[in-house]
Amino acid sequence: MTAVSAPTSAGTSFDLGPARALSCRECGHQIPLAAEFACAECFGPLEVAYEFGKIRREDIEAGPKSIWRYRGLLPVPSDVDSHPNTDPGLTRLVRADRLGAALGVKNLWVKDDTGNPTHSFKDRVVAVALAAARQLGFTVLACPSTGNLANAVAAAAARAGWQSVVLIPSSLERAKVLTTAVYDGALLAVDGNYDDVNRLATELASEHEDWAFVNVNVRPYYAEGSKTLAYEVAEQLGWRLPGQIVVPVASGSQLTKVDKGFREFGELGLVEPTPYRVFGAQATGCSPVSAAYKSGLDVVAPVRPDTIARSLAIGAPADGPYVLDAVRRTGGAVEDVTDEEVVEGIRLLARTEGIFAETAGGVTVATAKKLIETGQLDPDAETVLLITGDGLKTLDAVADRIGPKATVPPSAKAVREALGF
Amino acid sequence: MTAVSAPTSAGTSFDLGPARALSCRECGHQIPLAAEFACAECFGPLEVAYEFGKIRREDIEAGPKSIWRYRGLLPVPSDVDSHPNTDPGLTRLVRADRLGAALGVKNLWVKDDTGNPTHSFKDRVVAVALAAARQLGFTVLACPSTGNLANAVAAAAARAGWQSVVLIPSSLERAKVLTTAVYDGALLAVDGNYDDVNRLATELASEHEDWAFVNVNVRPYYAEGSKTLAYEVAEQLGWRLPGQIVVPVASGSQLTKVDKGFREFGELGLVEPTPYRVFGAQATGCSPVSAAYKSGLDVVAPVRPDTIARSLAIGAPADGPYVLDAVRRTGGAVEDVTDEEVVEGIRLLARTEGIFAETAGGVTVATAKKLIETGQLDPDAETVLLITGDGLKTLDAVADRIGPKATVPPSAKAVREALGF
Repeated sequence: MTAVSAPTSAGTSFDLGPARALSCRECGHQIPLAAEFACAECFGPLEVAYEFGKIRREDIEAGPKSIWRYRGLLPVPSDVDSHPNTDPGLTRLVRADRLGAALGVKNLWVKDDTGNPTHSFKDRVVAVALAAARQLGFTVLACPSTGNLANAVAAAAARAGWQSVVLIPSSLERAKVLTTAVYDGALLAVDGNYDDVNRLATELASEHEDWAFVNVNVRPYYAEGSKTLAYEVAEQLGWRLPGQIVVPVASGSQLTKVDKGFREFGELGLVEPTPYRVFGAQATGCSPVSAAYKSGLDVVAPVRPDTIARSLAIGAPADGPYVLDAVRRTGGAVEDVTDEEVVEGIRLLARTEGIFAETAGGVTVATAKKLIETGQLDPDAETVLLITGDGLKTLDAVADRIGPKATVPPSAKAVREALGF
Repeated sequence: MTAVSAPTSAGTSFDLGPARALSCRECGHQIPLAAEFACAECFGPLEVAYEFGKIRREDIEAGPKSIWRYRGLLPVPSDVDSHPNTDPGLTRLVRADRLGAALGVKNLWVKDDTGNPTHSFKDRVVAVALAAARQLGFTVLACPSTGNLANAVAAAAARAGWQSVVLIPSSLERAKVLTTAVYDGALLAVDGNYDDVNRLATELASEHEDWAFVNVNVRPYYAEGSKTLAYEVAEQLGWRLPGQIVVPVASGSQLTKVDKGFREFGELGLVEPTPYRVFGAQATGCSPVSAAYKSGLDVVAPVRPDTIARSLAIGAPADGPYVLDAVRRTGGAVEDVTDEEVVEGIRLLARTEGIFAETAGGVTVATAKKLIETGQLDPDAETVLLITGDGLKTLDAVADRIGPKATVPPSAKAVREALGF
């Protein structure tokens, strides 16, 4: 790949691979590559615009065993994997016949992103954010977060030898605090809710030129990392697109990038551009996009989240309208499920496939079940479910429902009796 | 690979790939392949004996992206990956320059087995045990366990659609109970300590012909799974052996199989048979092998474990004498570290490489540090550390030591003050 120089307002140049500019998703206004996230003309969200070189399947297959095999399709330099990073991705695409039988789907796959370095898909987006931030001249990696993102940022910064600043609400569960604090960055608990923490991050991002808040001032680059989920699914299926995919919706960014990834693969001739349908999954306790979809609206009214699926609990999802676009354009849908169904979804996936997902994964499985039962998802089409995080991180969600079948004295007879022999 | 038929005492035949017999490690007596684990002649432990076909690097490289790429070197049929299983292995070998700088080792790698399906190396041995058990005619997968093995057995059985029976001490921590119970097998808490549970498992294994206790009656097959750690290290280094490797010691089986794996690769011409040194790592609170090594003994006196490294807390390690053999033959050593050092080891690895290990990983890192400080490990030789399990499973070990740097009100000024700006 050729190195690229893009002029910026400061007159410096960056090697961000095939990335050529930032483009407003609302008005199309373009600006040079920079650490910007909102359009100066209309305040719409900025997205990376590319000029791709020739990308061949065999070059990807011969590439690194991580998301960096797709570096020619990401806003990162071609030598990205020579810098210390967590090398996420290339997680398993699991054939799920037993779950398929339980759901009545003939041809089902689970993309199991619990295998990432900190056990969620956030390692993908953070790795891309770190690579772009390095090029853009930042020296500190930062984020506001309630969990998975905090883990991923703290770990990625530690691995790279960068400082990190991670802001969390002071009420966060102990397990999520520990799994971030262990990496020994600057973890600060903020007295306030997640909205307060988020506002604080935006303020700090504007005041500290060397702090890259991955999901704020470098968000356009960060978000592109989710495309790798689509790339991997297509490559792992043997270079073709699935008929249907079910994606959990928090901010909505992931779903729109999965759709973008499939489209790019088709446009670049890496796969046949066959039709695919994208479905969004939400918890009923935070289902603003599902509500908008069902009401036939183009705008998403904010809600106050109340669900055990805390990693999806974004009441005002920034990419909600784009989720509605993608879902409607591809013939998909958005559906939501109760917390009770979320727990049943976690248990169903664990029981049938031996994969223990966090609550967001329960949302995906339970939503798939509901979509089938309501006739929205075609049980005869090849279907992929995205499992984006690990059950070890949300043990409390299932703690009340599961446990040993029995407690017995240490005798073989007692074991047999307990098992009903 | 040619299918193999081995006659058994019952007159049936099994396809266990290149496996030809079970051989006593003490007296060399051989018996046909069967579900046996102790020599009828001398009560010594039985081990799988092979007749390997031609194994080529390119065939391995073109194989599955899991331990099954080495199926020609394991006691499993050649179609092993066509049966539903968790497909473990091919975890990351991470270049660890920052940890190396902290330890004073020039050329350091971490084999990060936290990326396995249930986040420990136990997925490897259980997958091999399941594959062999299927061939041997078992229908139930079982184990006594205090943690990682319980997770791995319950998940593997769920994925395969097998029944599982997992026996745990009733005092086991809530997190380890939950991460096993979620797979919905027959999890039984036993009133007693781990020794009681282990004895109960041996009794049940003799009474239930269709129950494969992975670490009891199919142990010879199960143990072979650890060879894949060595195979992967050698392949990922570019088909060569490291100069030194540090391996945690519980029963000692893993260390002896890593040594076996390196030797096999050399004998088969897959790597140059260059010299390597194997080091064992224990927690001082359960260090019977380290004590024997330091005293120059060939036998290992049992101890009563008292350490936070519970996954290594086996007071009477079955393979202890074979660990001493391997370590002495290769010019390595066995060393042990305090619980305080274990926690520091966990934190050092997390801080420098962004990898959060369970207590066993802390033992490995801290022992490597001590081996260097005492001049036993050569800081100029290429060195690999085995990190065999995930920190999410042993949060309590670090809970008292780490946390947010500060709790602040939601203001940028407060953040800057907390960070010392």
